[in-house]
Amino acid sequence: MVSGMDEQLREKRRMPAAFLRSLDLPEPSLSDNRSHERRIRETLASDLKLPVTEIFLPLQIARQLPGLIREHGYRVDLVFCRDRHGYIVSGVFPKGCSPGVFGLAVDLGSTSVVFYLVDLRARRVVETVSRHNPQASHGDDILDRIIFASRGNGLQLMQQETAGLFNEVMADLCGRAGIRQDDIYYCSVAGNTTMCHLLLGLDPWHICREPYLPVVNRFDLISPEEVGLEMNPLGRLYLFPNIGSYFGGDLISGIIASGLHRQEEISLLVDVGTNAEVILGNRDWLVACAGAAGPALEGGILSCGTRAQPGAIERVEIDPTTLDLSWQTIGEIPPVGLCGSGIIDLLAALFLAGLVDSTGKLVVERDPDRFRKIDDVWCYVVADESITGHGRPVYISQSDIKNLIRSKGAMYTILNVVVQSVGVQFSDIQNFYVAGAFGTYISPDKAITIGMLPDISIDRFKGLGNAAGEGAVNMLLDASKMDEANEICDRITYLEMNVRGDFMDQLTGALFLPHTDLSLFPSVAAKLKKLGRFSTP
Amino acid sequence: MVSGMDEQLREKRRMPAAFLRSLDLPEPSLSDNRSHERRIRETLASDLKLPVTEIFLPLQIARQLPGLIREHGYRVDLVFCRDRHGYIVSGVFPKGCSPGVFGLAVDLGSTSVVFYLVDLRARRVVETVSRHNPQASHGDDILDRIIFASRGNGLQLMQQETAGLFNEVMADLCGRAGIRQDDIYYCSVAGNTTMCHLLLGLDPWHICREPYLPVVNRFDLISPEEVGLEMNPLGRLYLFPNIGSYFGGDLISGIIASGLHRQEEISLLVDVGTNAEVILGNRDWLVACAGAAGPALEGGILSCGTRAQPGAIERVEIDPTTLDLSWQTIGEIPPVGLCGSGIIDLLAALFLAGLVDSTGKLVVERDPDRFRKIDDVWCYVVADESITGHGRPVYISQSDIKNLIRSKGAMYTILNVVVQSVGVQFSDIQNFYVAGAFGTYISPDKAITIGMLPDISIDRFKGLGNAAGEGAVNMLLDASKMDEANEICDRITYLEMNVRGDFMDQLTGALFLPHTDLSLFPSVAAKLKKLGRFSTP
Repeated sequence: MVSGMDEQLREKRRMPAAFLRSLDLPEPSLSDNRSHERRIRETLASDLKLPVTEIFLPLQIARQLPGLIREHGYRVDLVFCRDRHGYIVSGVFPKGCSPGVFGLAVDLGSTSVVFYLVDLRARRVVETVSRHNPQASHGDDILDRIIFASRGNGLQLMQQETAGLFNEVMADLCGRAGIRQDDIYYCSVAGNTTMCHLLLGLDPWHICREPYLPVVNRFDLISPEEVGLEMNPLGRLYLFPNIGSYFGGDLISGIIASGLHRQEEISLLVDVGTNAEVILGNRDWLVACAGAAGPALEGGILSCGTRAQPGAIERVEIDPTTLDLSWQTIGEIPPVGLCGSGIIDLLAALFLAGLVDSTGKLVVERDPDRFRKIDDVWCYVVADESITGHGRPVYISQSDIKNLIRSKGAMYTILNVVVQSVGVQFSDIQNFYVAGAFGTYISPDKAITIGMLPDISIDRFKGLGNAAGEGAVNMLLDASKMDEANEICDRITYLEMNVRGDFMDQLTGALFLPHTDLSLFPSVAAKLKKLGRFSTP
Repeated sequence: MVSGMDEQLREKRRMPAAFLRSLDLPEPSLSDNRSHERRIRETLASDLKLPVTEIFLPLQIARQLPGLIREHGYRVDLVFCRDRHGYIVSGVFPKGCSPGVFGLAVDLGSTSVVFYLVDLRARRVVETVSRHNPQASHGDDILDRIIFASRGNGLQLMQQETAGLFNEVMADLCGRAGIRQDDIYYCSVAGNTTMCHLLLGLDPWHICREPYLPVVNRFDLISPEEVGLEMNPLGRLYLFPNIGSYFGGDLISGIIASGLHRQEEISLLVDVGTNAEVILGNRDWLVACAGAAGPALEGGILSCGTRAQPGAIERVEIDPTTLDLSWQTIGEIPPVGLCGSGIIDLLAALFLAGLVDSTGKLVVERDPDRFRKIDDVWCYVVADESITGHGRPVYISQSDIKNLIRSKGAMYTILNVVVQSVGVQFSDIQNFYVAGAFGTYISPDKAITIGMLPDISIDRFKGLGNAAGEGAVNMLLDASKMDEANEICDRITYLEMNVRGDFMDQLTGALFLPHTDLSLFPSVAAKLKKLGRFSTP
């Protein structure tokens, strides 16, 4: 049974980052001639059960009080924002005027930026929009942008472009929702370390140079004007903290979204990309690491790789017996390339069909019609030029496969090193969260087939969707997540993958399909055996 | 014996409001790749023995770190300012660059504004300047200014004029001291409630209307830009708190300067002016009140009253037997009027010489040559037109004397009511502090003679000089005074003089020279007896 008191306490803890409070202030008299400030602060402090010193009443608000009270009396609505210590009064209105109290959660990715407009009174997301990161015009790669930032006014330019995107999207979202930009009191941003630095105009120079130093690990709450954000000027901007150059706030936000740091059972969260970021743990301990997996898994550098967009082949199947090929594109339009999930499907299918051997070599003689030499390299053609959207073939080349195997091998090795570092087994992991757009679309059994993910029960894999964005929304709805984020940073033991010898030792075995040690992948071994192609490399 | 630890602790408590700290940050490595922010915050927190959350590193400072560290390495000088909670890093420099760290203390009077430039590293006042309050052009009287503020952009105008004066004086003082305005990190202001409101642009409308409400009692620390102050933009502006419309921050600052709130013995502090503000107490209890004494004591409304300026008669003596008159002017130039101390001297001398009787009536027949009818009213001429600076006589009229007696009577009655309210006697008061310029120049024995101050031993009277300014300087040198100021506000019991019946009951007896009950003024009775003019009214 939950008592009223418990309910109240829980409610208080879950207070959104900005919230409205209606106050009936006691009327003043000669025996109670406290100032407006004191009357508000003391009434609130007793209401919110806070010391008066935890309530910050900025000058701009104090300036509005005499006129407001003279016209409307002592019944007021106040908007509070969570501040560094306690709360700041960010808005004051006549009672019942009911202004909107909104927040903007942002997943600040280096390619796409996803915005969520959150109604903090109704406690729900009301609008969502995704945009390209405008910094991409200065380089797709993060390293290129760091170099761009170091030249002339490059940093300032990218800062302004990024803030400009925020402002443009806020104007758009506010128009759609029928609210004013001043009704947005809080902005919560989950981004990797470089993205956060660029948004704030912090020079990322040391991020990519040994020993890889961010300027800031834990961002203090920021006033919108310091960054040029056109939201309520007395609101606050929150960025999730990072624990290093390669383990950013997007991951901390993802951990918050998964809740793994509060669970008794052991979970693993992996964000698959050029860098593979991994967090393993439970409510008692947390281990993290990030390591380069190479860009192949995102489709970036492959001959026909593409982002997950209309026309991207996202699913591929090959009948292991007939070798019949089938595929499916996003939007069901003619294909233009292969996105991440399609690539993993394809490699798994090629391997099970015997069209690629365990060393990653294409077996051209097994289906000569499907193979073609392009630029003097053997390729498996998924869709020929007659049926594609751009009139060029969509294929995977021998060197693409080599790249893919290096990436998936690095990925698996990173996971293995992390798991071994704390003396647990893959089988001890109850929840295996895969974050990112990738996590939503990847087929775990295909990823297991190529030896990228460990061979554990399929039902333990959980796509987290946009975990970073979800964590940012969660923070707006429950500001105690800020404390949780700091606690997570305090608790994490970070393994520097680049300086670990065991990584290189273990990598070699992982550069096969699925692995030199097939006993690590019993389900794959079973499939191969069933197909009559059980072979040791 | 004082141990090193005690000394250290005391030192820490006495930290100035802004101070410099040199840090040798640990060099980063792969095994210590904390961000610049973390490195600074953690080094400092351990250095200052503070939690890391008490150190606020604003974005503007974080933006400077990468360039600074790249060029000058990990040895830095940081300037800290006391903030709402903990400290804000307001400046960062290469080590040994030794920037100046200055503060500006301001006694914001309604007539004069006194500025003190304080070197916070050397811990001393380096420059002082006094200026007229520019608001005076909108009215000498505070009430006039409150009315002016309520019209059109009157409030905004006075805010800008006041801040403008601050900026003009800062430019002047910095020029003289050879420093930059950015070297001023803290500004501490002691002013009455209305002055503080006008400086901040807070509408004083409710201050002068029952039930007399300020907008703010306790000002949060303010960023210079919010008020338009041209000092270091990451510095802070502090205003002493008030406990009501008629008991302002100037008095709280004065209490701090006197130290009476920390003494075991009972002290009384009075600020003599149009309003008499009184504080009585010791380290265990504090009682305060403010009451209207009328403007006569400041010389304001008297026929020949003037501010304490060159040409003002500040000392007057009349030989009680020969009736010979002598006086002294400020600057020893021809007289132009009578300032506060001169007026009190004059009334006391006239009374002892029998030229004014105990009811306040001029005794014209006793020295007919000195008396003259001006505007149909009898006047005692202190200096005739042939010797004054402006070619008009300097005199005191019968109606001036009536005004003076009303003011001095109100003053005495206020003191009496306060003392009685806590059940002590005037004789229990060990230190009787008289604040304001008035307090420095007034002769306590003359003030006793006219029954304005109680008849206690002369050596217990202590002129405090500019107590408000001194308190503001003290605060810059020892920021723990901010906490003391708040504690004082919490501890004070405020007596609302306007609503007390005993005030009016007691006032009647005090409207005589020195009082109807001569036993309250034994030293005056003795003087009169000696002069052979002992008389009961």
